[in-house]
Amino acid sequence: MSENTDLMQKIVSLAKRRGFVFQGSEIYGGLAGTYDYGPLGALLKNNVKDSWLKKFVHSRTDMYLVDAAILMNQNVWKATGHVDHFSDPLTEDLKTNKRYRADNLLEEKGFNVQGLSVAEMSDLIKENNVLSPDGNKLGEVRQFNMMLQTKVGASEDSAATSYLRPETAQGIFVNFKNVVDSMNPKMPFGIAQIGKAFRNEITPRDFIFRLRELEQMEIEYFVKPSEWSQHFEYWKDEMLEWMNSVGLDMKKVHDVEIGDGDRAHYSARTIDFEFEYPFGHKELYGLAYRGDYDLSRHQDGSSQKLQYVDQSEGGSEVFVPHVIEPSFGLDRTVLALLVSAYREDNIGGEDNRVYLALNPKIAPYKIAVSPLLKNKEDLVEKSKDIFGKLKSEFGNVVFDDNGNIGKRYRRQDEIGTPFCVVIDFESLEDQSVTVRLRDSGEQERIKMDDLVSYFKEKLA
Amino acid sequence: MSENTDLMQKIVSLAKRRGFVFQGSEIYGGLAGTYDYGPLGALLKNNVKDSWLKKFVHSRTDMYLVDAAILMNQNVWKATGHVDHFSDPLTEDLKTNKRYRADNLLEEKGFNVQGLSVAEMSDLIKENNVLSPDGNKLGEVRQFNMMLQTKVGASEDSAATSYLRPETAQGIFVNFKNVVDSMNPKMPFGIAQIGKAFRNEITPRDFIFRLRELEQMEIEYFVKPSEWSQHFEYWKDEMLEWMNSVGLDMKKVHDVEIGDGDRAHYSARTIDFEFEYPFGHKELYGLAYRGDYDLSRHQDGSSQKLQYVDQSEGGSEVFVPHVIEPSFGLDRTVLALLVSAYREDNIGGEDNRVYLALNPKIAPYKIAVSPLLKNKEDLVEKSKDIFGKLKSEFGNVVFDDNGNIGKRYRRQDEIGTPFCVVIDFESLEDQSVTVRLRDSGEQERIKMDDLVSYFKEKLA
Repeated sequence: MSENTDLMQKIVSLAKRRGFVFQGSEIYGGLAGTYDYGPLGALLKNNVKDSWLKKFVHSRTDMYLVDAAILMNQNVWKATGHVDHFSDPLTEDLKTNKRYRADNLLEEKGFNVQGLSVAEMSDLIKENNVLSPDGNKLGEVRQFNMMLQTKVGASEDSAATSYLRPETAQGIFVNFKNVVDSMNPKMPFGIAQIGKAFRNEITPRDFIFRLRELEQMEIEYFVKPSEWSQHFEYWKDEMLEWMNSVGLDMKKVHDVEIGDGDRAHYSARTIDFEFEYPFGHKELYGLAYRGDYDLSRHQDGSSQKLQYVDQSEGGSEVFVPHVIEPSFGLDRTVLALLVSAYREDNIGGEDNRVYLALNPKIAPYKIAVSPLLKNKEDLVEKSKDIFGKLKSEFGNVVFDDNGNIGKRYRRQDEIGTPFCVVIDFESLEDQSVTVRLRDSGEQERIKMDDLVSYFKEKLA
Repeated sequence: MSENTDLMQKIVSLAKRRGFVFQGSEIYGGLAGTYDYGPLGALLKNNVKDSWLKKFVHSRTDMYLVDAAILMNQNVWKATGHVDHFSDPLTEDLKTNKRYRADNLLEEKGFNVQGLSVAEMSDLIKENNVLSPDGNKLGEVRQFNMMLQTKVGASEDSAATSYLRPETAQGIFVNFKNVVDSMNPKMPFGIAQIGKAFRNEITPRDFIFRLRELEQMEIEYFVKPSEWSQHFEYWKDEMLEWMNSVGLDMKKVHDVEIGDGDRAHYSARTIDFEFEYPFGHKELYGLAYRGDYDLSRHQDGSSQKLQYVDQSEGGSEVFVPHVIEPSFGLDRTVLALLVSAYREDNIGGEDNRVYLALNPKIAPYKIAVSPLLKNKEDLVEKSKDIFGKLKSEFGNVVFDDNGNIGKRYRRQDEIGTPFCVVIDFESLEDQSVTVRLRDSGEQERIKMDDLVSYFKEKLA
């Protein structure tokens, strides 16, 4: 077993055992490509969202949040080309009828499939006698649409077809006019959204990396066409700054310029931010200059004018804004944070310990409060007192009196709790407590009266 | 036009005009039963969620948050009975083929349909010659399942069928075992979740009240079977306390005990909290004692033990916990808040004003900062200074220098901004500003240095 496979297994196992991430519908054998966030994962994910909202929405004056429906009129996806082109090339095992991504099968055999048509992939399979994983012949390669489809309303006709949005971005573009009309934003400005998206991946894999139900955090930033390049550079820096602030291991983040042949046809520049996951360098985030592609498509599709009237310089300039799109996968962020934070070391106990060096701002629990012994009434009483104060100030604080103090440290280390506060017999004399730091294992002695301000600084 | 219809139209119009709520996919003619939250609606909705999370999750020690997938294994919904029984009785106009809720048509004609079977409804329609809204004959009444269905994966077989969850509750029950195993909660404890749910309503209506895509905030609170009654009372009080704290007009909230014949068969007690919407008294929230119905169904459906082992009293008591379910509709909350807050009065201007008397804690913008005149450089500079400080402290603060000061007040009133800070010529002399209060229109003079602590108190 390679070191990387080993690391992934440790992370998946910790995530389940400690309540971060469970398999979706697990007691029913699961549903491939879906995962559920447990209590600690839900807190961690919410902290990531809050950090994103704080930096990109609440602290800015040029960003408007929206929260659009997952179900949209099917004509949205006709206009964008998703109905015709949002597809994967599939090939079927002619014996078992199992279907596979043709591009993946060919890549595994060492072929470069970049830019190949389905006919060319079919030819490659035939000429090289590429077989299915079960060793059987494969059929023709066909495009398979990745949007999940449903029927809305009681009618049986095709007008009732709807899709679960495969990206949150179009929920932004479709609301461009309403946001401009209601908020009168000055150019440049952005519209941001956090929400679920769905993709019928044929081979969901790598834990919460490639999912059928995923969550995205996206911004469409609208600029004057002539100014796109400077905004692109600005957003690249903003994205890197946030990644660093949230606690991603920046040595594992690589920005990759996408070359001319590999970009979407409407994009004059795209950067992928890749992360060194244990299973390889994979796309974490994207930054794309999309020109006026989306708004123009929706102008054509909806027969509505999606323009901006700029009156900032006396006259009145009318144009379709160009767009810079910083796009963040939320589940991929959670996984990259777990990979960044996972550590094993030995700080002097009998065994190695495992800890998550999560940024205190995004750790599920900020502080654990413990009486040194659980059967000493005055220790427990004082501890509950301090626990109550810290909880009402910092929210996710936990009371932990289970097992001996060493075990409690290990347990909190493993879920990334940055601080443990211990109330001991001396505390009753000197009105001080021990604060034990997760990463170094070091301990500080802090006056009870100073605890709130101490943590305010540490958690700022 | 009745006063109530008038009020709904005013609220819908304000919601669109000022960026609270837009029709879903509006530029494409919409998609019935879906709405998109605009910038102010998204902030308002997030504030409601945060308030709920703070009270029911973060400030408690017995509540575990989860965030489960919308797509679940279809066997979840077989076990709960949703596949067989989560349906509405439909009848078809035999001429136009439009379908209608048979119970609604009959109720509109004055019939009491409570507890009637589809056969009995068919008979009532025939015997009384009830016609469709277009005046045509109606067909037999049939059950129509309200779950939205999709196919997951590339396979064509029925194993790939999945449903968009019609309620968030089952995402909690299905994770009961994982939460118990990973978090070792002590009884009683709860699991909470906020998320989307989907119902294929035949006649979505009343703005964001009856939606096809909706958001719920639900708690399943697990108790010892013998103690359900006291917990039920406790949760009733907790729900009322939260409703009041978030700013619902409590004179419009009515709790309705659901009688023996009308409760779900597994529930020994259910309360509906109804709200006086302009279109009638309608269900806002529910509080249900569900016994061990859900966990037992999933035990049978999944062949997994969903029990709790209680070791708190020395021995080891094993049982299936009973459940109290406080359930909150998020979109219905937003609408009830708008209805509660909508006001018209005259405080001395030329025209009546409209304002939203939203609780400052959930208002989209907390404070608007304005220079008295926008073309006086030192006023503007000082204003931006103060704006920066307040924004970094309170987040959603807005700078407003558009039009004259009276117009700005009206504009902020209409979106519920509780405080306007105005920097005038005197400010430059006395280092004080005017703080104008939304509801009374009164003004206070506050020292610039005291502004942060002034608002900390007002917004606490």
